[in-house]
Amino acid sequence: MSSQSAIGVFDSGLGGLSAVKEFLNVLPFEKIVYFGDTGRVPYGTRSREIINKYAFQDARFLQTHNVKMIVAACGTVSSVAGEALREKLSVPYTGVVNPTAYTAVRKTKNGKIGVIGTAATVGSHSYKLRLQKLNPGVKVFEQACPLFVSLVENGIIHRDDQITRLVVRRYMAELKDAGVDTVILGCTHFPLLREAISDYMGEGVTLVDSGYETANYAAKVLREQNLLTDDETVKTPSFFVSDTPEGFESVAGLFLGRDMEHTVTQIDIEQY
Amino acid sequence: MSSQSAIGVFDSGLGGLSAVKEFLNVLPFEKIVYFGDTGRVPYGTRSREIINKYAFQDARFLQTHNVKMIVAACGTVSSVAGEALREKLSVPYTGVVNPTAYTAVRKTKNGKIGVIGTAATVGSHSYKLRLQKLNPGVKVFEQACPLFVSLVENGIIHRDDQITRLVVRRYMAELKDAGVDTVILGCTHFPLLREAISDYMGEGVTLVDSGYETANYAAKVLREQNLLTDDETVKTPSFFVSDTPEGFESVAGLFLGRDMEHTVTQIDIEQY
Repeated sequence: MSSQSAIGVFDSGLGGLSAVKEFLNVLPFEKIVYFGDTGRVPYGTRSREIINKYAFQDARFLQTHNVKMIVAACGTVSSVAGEALREKLSVPYTGVVNPTAYTAVRKTKNGKIGVIGTAATVGSHSYKLRLQKLNPGVKVFEQACPLFVSLVENGIIHRDDQITRLVVRRYMAELKDAGVDTVILGCTHFPLLREAISDYMGEGVTLVDSGYETANYAAKVLREQNLLTDDETVKTPSFFVSDTPEGFESVAGLFLGRDMEHTVTQIDIEQY
Repeated sequence: MSSQSAIGVFDSGLGGLSAVKEFLNVLPFEKIVYFGDTGRVPYGTRSREIINKYAFQDARFLQTHNVKMIVAACGTVSSVAGEALREKLSVPYTGVVNPTAYTAVRKTKNGKIGVIGTAATVGSHSYKLRLQKLNPGVKVFEQACPLFVSLVENGIIHRDDQITRLVVRRYMAELKDAGVDTVILGCTHFPLLREAISDYMGEGVTLVDSGYETANYAAKVLREQNLLTDDETVKTPSFFVSDTPEGFESVAGLFLGRDMEHTVTQIDIEQY
């Protein structure tokens, strides 16, 4: 492992590509090795035990690529297995919770922060605990939005789609009534619903994107540890998935926001 | 394996319990061993390759219980891996496709049949092929309804829920316009949306429940092969899952339609 090594990014599926999009903007010279556990996605509805098991298999796979840092670009993994990963991995690790919480605490003016995520993320209270550690004065309102993942994966995301609007209202009404001025998008799928969420919550509410915050935080860590590459050529990411790569292009395009050159390889994650 | 052995039933998750409910009605003296792959659910969005791999692991696990028959109570597994399972298993096998198609062909009066299921089920055209083999004259209209599974798993199933009604309309409009008089509920989650689907399609449309048809078909096969138990005491099922059994009770109650005595055990399906 050296500063020329890749950054390993993983997610339960392809949602983490919304974070990769931010990495490519912030760190274009870094090589990204991404693993998406498409054969076992989603994690957000599963138990702590299973999420831990899967997360360590994912991280072990990335370590076979000699990565210099591991990023869990997944609200669920970061929330449930984050501490264990940080302790046990031999390379720098970050999830999405800490960098995102840090920004939310800085952004809020009225001290009322909403957190939306999967059932596992919200059930772990990871964001709430972190936010209140950073600032014991903030009030945190949590809401699990399990149907958001399905909406995104089925492309029902347009701000004018009646189903999208109704589901957003169903989940977000209590946060709106509570008067939050900042909402953490605590799942890498949720940035694709940003417009619909913003329409409902109103312009005065800041939406904090966990992928964006995490990419910036990772850049900071690597800089501090002198681990940024000095080879200033733009790298193309390598993608690995646990189901067949069929259909990867279209979904990847959706999350990455562009078509790009890359390779996709299927691996058997149960072997790690 | 003897007539006193259990019947093995499996599904990608807990949806197959809607079929177990029918088995308990039709075959109350039979012991049911159920496996739900809750650690890897859902299957309906995955590739043929992964669905095949998982289905054989599931069936191998059930065979360690010396079952006398294996039932894939899952539209996706039956559609994608059904033929391979039938060929390779050493005990009688049935999925849900053949018995359900058989009933649908008998029920239709105008020869127009709708099929709804997961993306994998509809993509396999398993129902369409079977229906047209049974009666080359029928017209078959297929529709993948991926969001239905999420609605059921999040309890958004009431006939008066605006989200439920909108999603039903979104998926079912083409089948209604086509004038189908019979609809196959080709996923074990869908019977929980029966009322909302029926409200939209109208009273004249017959909904065929794959779990009900499969339980009756399994009873017929076991009777013909002299494999029904002669011990006429009511048996309680044994349930196995691949995630923790936490939360099993409430979801099982939903699909089984009643609370009942049972055991739930977690197993590591990757070992099979």
